[in-house]
Amino acid sequence: MSNRVVVVGADAAGMSAASQAKRLDPSLEVVALDRGAYASYSACGIPYWVAGDVDDVDTLIARTPEEHRRRGIDLRLHHEVMELDTAAGEVRVRDLERGEDYSLGYDSLVLATGATPRRPDVEGIDAPGVFGVQTLGDGAAILEHLRTRDPKRAVVLGGGYIGVEMAEAMVRRGLQVTVVDRSPQPMSTLDPDMGALVRTAMCGLGIEVRTSTVVRSVETGADGWVRAVVTDDGEIPADLVVLGTGVRPGTDLARDAGLPLGHFGGLYTDLQMRVPGADGVWAAGDCVESLDLVSGKRMHAALGTHANKQGRTAGTNIGGGYATFPGVVGTAVSKVCTLQIARTGLREFECDAVGFRWFAVHVESTTAAGYHPEAEDVTVKLLAEQRTGRLLGAQIVGGDGAAKRIDACAVALWNRMTVEEMTALDLGYAPPFSPVWDPVLIAARKAADRLRTS
Amino acid sequence: MSNRVVVVGADAAGMSAASQAKRLDPSLEVVALDRGAYASYSACGIPYWVAGDVDDVDTLIARTPEEHRRRGIDLRLHHEVMELDTAAGEVRVRDLERGEDYSLGYDSLVLATGATPRRPDVEGIDAPGVFGVQTLGDGAAILEHLRTRDPKRAVVLGGGYIGVEMAEAMVRRGLQVTVVDRSPQPMSTLDPDMGALVRTAMCGLGIEVRTSTVVRSVETGADGWVRAVVTDDGEIPADLVVLGTGVRPGTDLARDAGLPLGHFGGLYTDLQMRVPGADGVWAAGDCVESLDLVSGKRMHAALGTHANKQGRTAGTNIGGGYATFPGVVGTAVSKVCTLQIARTGLREFECDAVGFRWFAVHVESTTAAGYHPEAEDVTVKLLAEQRTGRLLGAQIVGGDGAAKRIDACAVALWNRMTVEEMTALDLGYAPPFSPVWDPVLIAARKAADRLRTS
Repeated sequence: MSNRVVVVGADAAGMSAASQAKRLDPSLEVVALDRGAYASYSACGIPYWVAGDVDDVDTLIARTPEEHRRRGIDLRLHHEVMELDTAAGEVRVRDLERGEDYSLGYDSLVLATGATPRRPDVEGIDAPGVFGVQTLGDGAAILEHLRTRDPKRAVVLGGGYIGVEMAEAMVRRGLQVTVVDRSPQPMSTLDPDMGALVRTAMCGLGIEVRTSTVVRSVETGADGWVRAVVTDDGEIPADLVVLGTGVRPGTDLARDAGLPLGHFGGLYTDLQMRVPGADGVWAAGDCVESLDLVSGKRMHAALGTHANKQGRTAGTNIGGGYATFPGVVGTAVSKVCTLQIARTGLREFECDAVGFRWFAVHVESTTAAGYHPEAEDVTVKLLAEQRTGRLLGAQIVGGDGAAKRIDACAVALWNRMTVEEMTALDLGYAPPFSPVWDPVLIAARKAADRLRTS
Repeated sequence: MSNRVVVVGADAAGMSAASQAKRLDPSLEVVALDRGAYASYSACGIPYWVAGDVDDVDTLIARTPEEHRRRGIDLRLHHEVMELDTAAGEVRVRDLERGEDYSLGYDSLVLATGATPRRPDVEGIDAPGVFGVQTLGDGAAILEHLRTRDPKRAVVLGGGYIGVEMAEAMVRRGLQVTVVDRSPQPMSTLDPDMGALVRTAMCGLGIEVRTSTVVRSVETGADGWVRAVVTDDGEIPADLVVLGTGVRPGTDLARDAGLPLGHFGGLYTDLQMRVPGADGVWAAGDCVESLDLVSGKRMHAALGTHANKQGRTAGTNIGGGYATFPGVVGTAVSKVCTLQIARTGLREFECDAVGFRWFAVHVESTTAAGYHPEAEDVTVKLLAEQRTGRLLGAQIVGGDGAAKRIDACAVALWNRMTVEEMTALDLGYAPPFSPVWDPVLIAARKAADRLRTS
């Protein structure tokens, strides 16, 4: 009898694990279970689908269920895992369509249960017209709402990545948009000084930004649909509310099974994505915590790119190969209309929390030579450690060509470079792509100067 | 009496050195000499000026002579250094406007004499209608020619960076363009397989590409102006000929003074940009050879970004500070119309020459998530060392968003990363910016797989 691999959760992490394990060891029996109706879809693509950039939802599906099945994976949609018994090595599964439960033993189990949106714990948050942005079903529901109810005013709760992307989508759909965030600036994955630049740009796009504002309730009208969001700073009319309030690891199943969870509620794994202390159990994707290579602490970074890497790592090891996921440096890019936003490494308060004594520099430059017609403004902020000059973080906000510049910083961070070393980096230069000193180099130079004189 | 710094050549390298030395030590007497009419201009910007992207030539001038003089630099344009006497510590200068010669002693001398275009040694190459792309005067002459003689057919000699950029400029000016190159593919700073992609794109833009073709002569008409380029493969009619045939270090002055030159004819310097064996002599910019950190050999890389860094390094040391220019990894980016071209590290033949046993992988991917409307095709080639998997080079050709991806590879190369290590890099991901696996990561993954199975 062949070894059976059971995968719980059939999105990026789970199906990467399933595919890779099956590819490396075709003798494995691989069963992938998901309570939802879709597998292998790009949740990150939902804002672009809602915005109208993507016409056909099928293009968000990286691989169809039939393709997975043709590759020998027993993919079971609408099958929810209700219980995990690590001692017995089995899961209890509910076939949601038939209403039947059954048990499934495993030799290897991959927990890829994703993340759960944080919903503000206020009255009315489940009212019709309030939408998450987690699943293709959520995207379809928003589009249906736009089509059938012709909303005029959208309120987006949360000014993080999903929040600003959905704000853009709503603007492009012609709605009047208000973003509400409890932080002092939107995009709190950046330091507030850089978040302020995002705020200015958002306001310039006609988006109202209400920060340091707490939601009290969501009010519904006589028809039962959402009518307004009530905050500690007054009421905001709303025909549509989007939840961009972040996610937490979806680890209820793991917690109920007694698996240890970390500070952020995510699963702990070793470098191979194995869950220590639970025989044959692996985990990957938005339900795990990752090692932050800069701070040395665990963090929760729910991103498709990590999910894919982690899933592939688990699948490689299950399939008899060897791979590790060493951790992250906290890179993320986003945009709101023409403004690009990027970050990697630690923010100021994170440096403080770890005990780094740091300093920051800012530079304003352009994405191309100043005289080139495609030059756009860009602001780069670098954080570096005092004494050593080690790069600790980078944040970039600017026009076209700004965001992916973060990659050079991310690779520098990965390699524990100092800002002094970075000043000499051989980055690509030609007038359409960069000033003769790339903005990242100017920032490194400024940081190195500061280091010498401080 | 104050120390005198004499700078020969008042463009990027020379004026960076002059400015930085004066800034750090205002007591220095800094004299900058240039035989030309301009200082601190962006030669790299000339193709964009000719193309019409840049209206006002003044924007190509980073700092005017008056600004330099206000900063206390004694800038003397139209002053050519005829002779260098390192034993006496003086230069012989000719004031080209007055026709007078004088001697100038130095405590520190910065040789920033730039590069000289290679002109094919054929009859007619100096005919009217044949233009270099080195100086602002060259750019002005081409624009004047376009204005007054309304040329229809341009022939660009050389299919390297300048060649393709000038080909684009001529296409955008409405000319019929032929690029002639002796190599088997254009863009021979790439391997031929990647150069072939550039060729296809150029042809798609209506540019005729004649490779493995040697120029025999330039023919003039009855009016004395260029009429055709004669090659070993026939005659190509031409109303305008552009020289994009590369440059060699402009080191005649140094050679005549007995300073040792390297394999490529460039000056040798130490890490601080000091010329060993010549007291108080420094060098920077297109006239020097740089250490290639991948091959460990000297190379000649005539790029504005290196010139600025080297000049600043020399100036810092002359001004009493400490800085080094550790070398380059060979990064360069360019574009021809919508096609972006990037490279870093070694090409196949360079790996062979150094003795690396290598392998190559290619991947075709997109610059954004496949479903995103701004996704463009991109091809990434990586070269890695057998056994160790050390990255040796990267080449990228593709649409918008392709070229600056080379920076992640350049920083990886700088840090001697292996392709296996690169697979885990935390590069920025969001649908408008990258597929969930960045093309660079896919290539690294493919290379790591190849390494394990080879």
